[in-house]
Amino acid sequence: MDAELDNTDLPGQRGPLQHEMRERVVRAAEARFRHYGFGKTTVAEIAADLNVSSAYIYKFFDSKVAICEAVCGSLLTRLDEALWAEARSARPAAERLRRLYKLLLDQSLTMFFNERKLHDMVITGLQHKWASIERHIETLDEIARHIVQEGRTSGEFERKTPLDETANAVSSTFAPFCHPVLLENGLDQDMPAQADAVASLVLRGLAV
Amino acid sequence: MDAELDNTDLPGQRGPLQHEMRERVVRAAEARFRHYGFGKTTVAEIAADLNVSSAYIYKFFDSKVAICEAVCGSLLTRLDEALWAEARSARPAAERLRRLYKLLLDQSLTMFFNERKLHDMVITGLQHKWASIERHIETLDEIARHIVQEGRTSGEFERKTPLDETANAVSSTFAPFCHPVLLENGLDQDMPAQADAVASLVLRGLAV
Repeated sequence: MDAELDNTDLPGQRGPLQHEMRERVVRAAEARFRHYGFGKTTVAEIAADLNVSSAYIYKFFDSKVAICEAVCGSLLTRLDEALWAEARSARPAAERLRRLYKLLLDQSLTMFFNERKLHDMVITGLQHKWASIERHIETLDEIARHIVQEGRTSGEFERKTPLDETANAVSSTFAPFCHPVLLENGLDQDMPAQADAVASLVLRGLAV
Repeated sequence: MDAELDNTDLPGQRGPLQHEMRERVVRAAEARFRHYGFGKTTVAEIAADLNVSSAYIYKFFDSKVAICEAVCGSLLTRLDEALWAEARSARPAAERLRRLYKLLLDQSLTMFFNERKLHDMVITGLQHKWASIERHIETLDEIARHIVQEGRTSGEFERKTPLDETANAVSSTFAPFCHPVLLENGLDQDMPAQADAVASLVLRGLAV
């Protein structure tokens, strides 16, 4: 094995992260997981899709679970990018926050339930406390803080309460609309209406 | 078996609910689950604690899981009673709601984490969508509605928004402070401060 390929700072993931092959493995694995589920996919099948050997894939990931974590991270990164695009838009902060609840709910439902096979993967990740999931939760905190701060700067939101306290309170109201276990419990309810009602309550709480 | 003992409306639970023996089985099972966990307790051991045969216990419950559901229901009923006592107190509605977040958090943490063996039982219940858990969630909705309504009557809270919509929005903000899976993720944070921050935000949203 190349010395270069041992150079990594992520547990279970070998080789330089930039390596194009690593991305190809993640994309091929994601396609397999979508169609057949995590449990029914083997590293040999992912390797066959890419016309390489399993041994070659093990240069980049030391197990199928490590590949799964990378796929999960890739999905959550795309979700976070969509959320940041809304959070940084030119709309008034209040409108951004209301749209964020809807976007978070829509994207989370699509990720966890339209793609039922991926849902099981994310539940596995929650149980293992994957870094990618911790990062997603931190991103939700940062996005809430960003919008609250911008609303304070523009004069839309009150400035009497401590910013961090209020921003964390806002992000904790996201839970029913993004957590796979809570979303599952709420599938028999009108979740979009519920998300909009929480947005209204929170926006009244943030108003000047 | 007595004809009387077949008369029941709960699946998996036999005999008249009023039967004193049923309560004794639930109490004995709860003590066993607390000390040894659900998995390590057998129906024969519960029967031995009560000086009866396993067959006698099966007159009341058709499986250990049915006993477990009854124990879970009994615990959640006690929790709901404590929450209702706060919700119906003579304090101003705003104060009741703030105290409710704290009470819900304290009691849920005690139930799920101080009694680690019981936590696993509740997770089992969540997976099986037990009626007792659905009832607990409904109770949280009813309690939120009761406090919001009383605060509207007393003139503490605004009355422009639809009562049901606002009450449901309030109860959905309880999730991080009562759901065992979310509580587990938040154990590294200052949850009491977080609950108080959400209470403050929500109360500002409810204010006239």
